[in-house]
Amino acid sequence: MPKRQGRQTLWLTNRPVIAASAGVVGKKEGEGPLGREFDKVFDDAHLGKDSWEKAESAIHRSAVALALQKAKKSPDEVDLLLAGDLLNQCIGTTFGVMDFGIPFAGLYGACSTMALSLAMAAVLVDSGAAGCAVASTSSHFCSAEKQFRSPLEYGGQRPPQAQWTATAAGAAVLEAGRGDVTVESVTFGRITDYGVTDANNMGAAMAPAAAATIADRLMQTGESPADYDLILTGDLGAVGSALLIELLAREHGINIKPQHADCGTMLFDLDEQDVNSGGSGCGCSGAVVCTNVVRRLRQGELKRVLFVGTGALLSAVSARQGATIPCIAHGVVLTSK
Amino acid sequence: MPKRQGRQTLWLTNRPVIAASAGVVGKKEGEGPLGREFDKVFDDAHLGKDSWEKAESAIHRSAVALALQKAKKSPDEVDLLLAGDLLNQCIGTTFGVMDFGIPFAGLYGACSTMALSLAMAAVLVDSGAAGCAVASTSSHFCSAEKQFRSPLEYGGQRPPQAQWTATAAGAAVLEAGRGDVTVESVTFGRITDYGVTDANNMGAAMAPAAAATIADRLMQTGESPADYDLILTGDLGAVGSALLIELLAREHGINIKPQHADCGTMLFDLDEQDVNSGGSGCGCSGAVVCTNVVRRLRQGELKRVLFVGTGALLSAVSARQGATIPCIAHGVVLTSK
Repeated sequence: MPKRQGRQTLWLTNRPVIAASAGVVGKKEGEGPLGREFDKVFDDAHLGKDSWEKAESAIHRSAVALALQKAKKSPDEVDLLLAGDLLNQCIGTTFGVMDFGIPFAGLYGACSTMALSLAMAAVLVDSGAAGCAVASTSSHFCSAEKQFRSPLEYGGQRPPQAQWTATAAGAAVLEAGRGDVTVESVTFGRITDYGVTDANNMGAAMAPAAAATIADRLMQTGESPADYDLILTGDLGAVGSALLIELLAREHGINIKPQHADCGTMLFDLDEQDVNSGGSGCGCSGAVVCTNVVRRLRQGELKRVLFVGTGALLSAVSARQGATIPCIAHGVVLTSK
Repeated sequence: MPKRQGRQTLWLTNRPVIAASAGVVGKKEGEGPLGREFDKVFDDAHLGKDSWEKAESAIHRSAVALALQKAKKSPDEVDLLLAGDLLNQCIGTTFGVMDFGIPFAGLYGACSTMALSLAMAAVLVDSGAAGCAVASTSSHFCSAEKQFRSPLEYGGQRPPQAQWTATAAGAAVLEAGRGDVTVESVTFGRITDYGVTDANNMGAAMAPAAAATIADRLMQTGESPADYDLILTGDLGAVGSALLIELLAREHGINIKPQHADCGTMLFDLDEQDVNSGGSGCGCSGAVVCTNVVRRLRQGELKRVLFVGTGALLSAVSARQGATIPCIAHGVVLTSK
């Protein structure tokens, strides 16, 4: 059963297990430093579909199908699927997962969705509400650009602080029992708003949310950064990561520099792949956590990881109305035995 | 702790209590048959804001603030707020609730959001994951029309089967302990797709989802419709309600006619208020359940209610691409002592 510490952190006393997980990506992501980690690389950005949205649904479906297959589970054995994405009304998810017929709870956490879905799934499995749950998410560069910025054909210039929405999806199968990789605890974030209005600078908008969740968690639990092998944000990019480290040091006296990494700077080679500040999008941390991070935990290379998924809760409408970009970050602690 | 029956239904053995709830509406909803039930009626559809989206955030905020006030809770006493709405990236919710500073889990369930948020909040409180949780949602006629159909100024004709998105919000404060109105059990729905593509006929699209959740629940629990005083859908409207009754009778041999009511036909006077098939939108069932239904339970007029929130998981993009309208329905059983 979950045990609360403070009002944000829950210790999962039954330690739900990540039975299996999968990450699938597009061509550009497959050419990045983590290319060999992924379960599938789709060279065709359309995945044979006639719209970017349908292509995103197809990668979402693929990640869930592969995770289920690796966990040797049929969809009928899953009690609840918790998922969401960046598209309006989360259609990437809906059309991606509906054919599985699994009871479904839709989430909206923008790019924090992998952390939010993992956290929710873990709490539900820990309490026995679900015997087996799937957490998943997706993003697609083309569907996101079209929706949030401008048509691809327009060829808009991208400022150096901009991030590159990953074409990727991640899925994890959680269940009660024993296993190599477990969810030890979770920390639900609060919405923060630092007044950033530049929709091309998500890293700056999201860094304060990550700082708040990390500071809240460490304060509430009495932990220090050294209690983790890795404090992994997803996805602040290079600009946001620098801001996070500075914010935590200056405002909270916390130094996470030795432990910190960011899924957005791991997914791409920032010098070679022309992605400016790094990767972003729900699928970025989704695919990185569900492959590289879970693998390193499973192999014992990592022992205890604080994964902090960050999401910018703006819409194209709120941005055009000049509104600020409220953000949120959720923390999930993964451990290996 | 939640106890599973089948893979969709959870019995909440600690019976989380609805400490208080609130519903707020716009002028048209305030003139309807339930006008006197609501905690606040806003005569100005703008609520003094300069956009419909900001007006929706204001009604969302108002419902949460009133529910907290009635429960005699400060935001600091709430462990988690679970909420969502219909707007792209759920900005109605984000900008509505961010100032409370409550840890936040965003949901997307379209018009099923009140049921989804109540179900999630109840399960989390039941397991001790949250000591106190808020479930809330909102919709606004003008922000929804603008986003899903056409600008209000266009004055598009509405076919008779169309529903009228309510300008309304509902919020409920759940906690452990004793009280008059409790959440007894919940049933998470599966996504259904009957191939409906007419975005002006949500009732027809959503009726099969409601039928599936009701049939799944009754089959898994061995209950019959007569075990409830009220089987309340939200929101199928007149067209969808008739289809639901027919579908359940024909495909499952279940007759819910004596127990059935629908939030969309309760909120408005269908003969007088020019709303065609009835109300819809997250706020419709949100406001109706959080006022009228909870009051009747509190006063003992109702003993056991199966509230089935229905959501159409389309977007304007998927509709324009000719996609079908996948739908979902979640069930929450409310009881009075």
